Amino acid sequence: MHAADAIDRSIGRTGSIACVGLDPRPSLIPPTLREQVIASHGAGAAGVAEAFRIANEAIIDVVAGRCAAVKPQTACYEAYGSAGWAALEATVTHARDAGIPVILDGKRGDIGSTAAHYGQMAFGGAPGLTDEPDDAVEGMGATWLTANPYLGVDGIVPMVEDTTAGLFVITKTSNPSSGELQDTPSGDGTVADTVADLVAEWGADRIGECGLSDIGAVVGATYPGHARSLRERMPDAFFLVPGYGAQGGTGADAVVGMRDDGRGVLVSSSRGITGAWQATGTDDWAGCARDALDAMNRDLEAARR
Amino acid sequence: MHAADAIDRSIGRTGSIACVGLDPRPSLIPPTLREQVIASHGAGAAGVAEAFRIANEAIIDVVAGRCAAVKPQTACYEAYGSAGWAALEATVTHARDAGIPVILDGKRGDIGSTAAHYGQMAFGGAPGLTDEPDDAVEGMGATWLTANPYLGVDGIVPMVEDTTAGLFVITKTSNPSSGELQDTPSGDGTVADTVADLVAEWGADRIGECGLSDIGAVVGATYPGHARSLRERMPDAFFLVPGYGAQGGTGADAVVGMRDDGRGVLVSSSRGITGAWQATGTDDWAGCARDALDAMNRDLEAARR
Repeated sequence: MHAADAIDRSIGRTGSIACVGLDPRPSLIPPTLREQVIASHGAGAAGVAEAFRIANEAIIDVVAGRCAAVKPQTACYEAYGSAGWAALEATVTHARDAGIPVILDGKRGDIGSTAAHYGQMAFGGAPGLTDEPDDAVEGMGATWLTANPYLGVDGIVPMVEDTTAGLFVITKTSNPSSGELQDTPSGDGTVADTVADLVAEWGADRIGECGLSDIGAVVGATYPGHARSLRERMPDAFFLVPGYGAQGGTGADAVVGMRDDGRGVLVSSSRGITGAWQATGTDDWAGCARDALDAMNRDLEAARR
Repeated sequence: MHAADAIDRSIGRTGSIACVGLDPRPSLIPPTLREQVIASHGAGAAGVAEAFRIANEAIIDVVAGRCAAVKPQTACYEAYGSAGWAALEATVTHARDAGIPVILDGKRGDIGSTAAHYGQMAFGGAPGLTDEPDDAVEGMGATWLTANPYLGVDGIVPMVEDTTAGLFVITKTSNPSSGELQDTPSGDGTVADTVADLVAEWGADRIGECGLSDIGAVVGATYPGHARSLRERMPDAFFLVPGYGAQGGTGADAVVGMRDDGRGVLVSSSRGITGAWQATGTDDWAGCARDALDAMNRDLEAARR
């Protein structure tokens, strides 16, 4: 199935355009879980990784059926080495088992054959020591990977060659200094506009049944003015929209890039959901995450109308 | 010690401006090693990871003292999951133990606190489950990380905040489609020129004793015309130069960006060294790598004169 259809159907099934970011950090682990894990695994990398796995699995169990996708941020796991990487793998597996499409947020990009290896990391298919298909590696099993366009098409397309997997190409990001390079005048617009034109070109022959492409774009909610003009340049791209909530983007900002047919936008929130317990004085992190997601869904639903 | 000084001193000590790329793939593993590992670890991810570790350690042992740095490409390891990541960690540790500075080639970049986690991955310091400094994670122990500038300064600088670690920011890459975005007219030059100006700005207050900055630039050998003008925009940046050898760049192309004082260029080769055994009909991959590196050093030495 096309990666675009996997997300579009998940939106149809759950009625939600929300994506739950799984960006665990020790400061987001509730005290009771922290103490429990320190006792069994210590407070170092092995303990952190185990706490991430337990917390993520509990979050996934309560958000299943209530969100369109989950999005683990690779950096949070990589900081804890191979133990962290194993927790990332367990998280992705748990989400897949719960029927939730997974967007791996790694912002990868490199040249040719190296880019292909990043695709194998996210989607599987790395060769084993023989040419036997049975020895090929399963990989993470993600549905989408976020990608960085700076190297051009041969840093992007090899990641999804011969697959129906998806790439969200970072186009206009939500951070304060995103304009430093992205807003620089270029061609008939800005550098971000140039990337948008490339995204439309790269994705033109990868359109799913839903009418959207497997080559999508990251378009931050914190710059709603840009989202409108970027939609004109990328009529068939799925937009992954970060920056909602904690970073300041409102529900109305987040859905600016939606197509006239009501399709094509997925809104991401991380700390706003997984860190919701911190403001409550309780340790019920999973319940707080569910409530925060329900509130986000209501906010986005109101904004769509 | 400043990351720039670590490389500059390594160049002084070894007389080499070469960097050996450690980009292992099953096809680069010689048959005898492959069979030995299949017998002990199988042909899947665990076997591939073990073969990578053994091959890399043998290569490192013969190139130590003959090159300025080694550069593992993270994608090759990530494609094999947590087993691959553990092989990457073992490789970096072995290189450090051999006294060779390590450039981790991950081309990372993300916003704010996420970028900081990528820095922790490469250089250490991720917090444990308590605030005890003893619980903080050691990290990979690399000297430099390659970074992607597309998100702007807050996607770059948090990776090396409060450290003297180094970042090679990809500026003009060696691949065929690098011009798609990088050569687009922008400001008084191109997008790559805009990035070069940002690199110079970001690195201005991070100059080591050697007069070079810990914020360097990736400038491909396949576009020597660009290297000359990029050096004018980044007078104090270390250049990491890929594209020599297998990708078509000559020794003369590779050293175009060298400063008048003979400093500031590091030339990388991967397959040309670690895959040299394939053209010889022997299985002595480590000996062939040493000979290929010696030939590269002679070529670069001639080009510098």
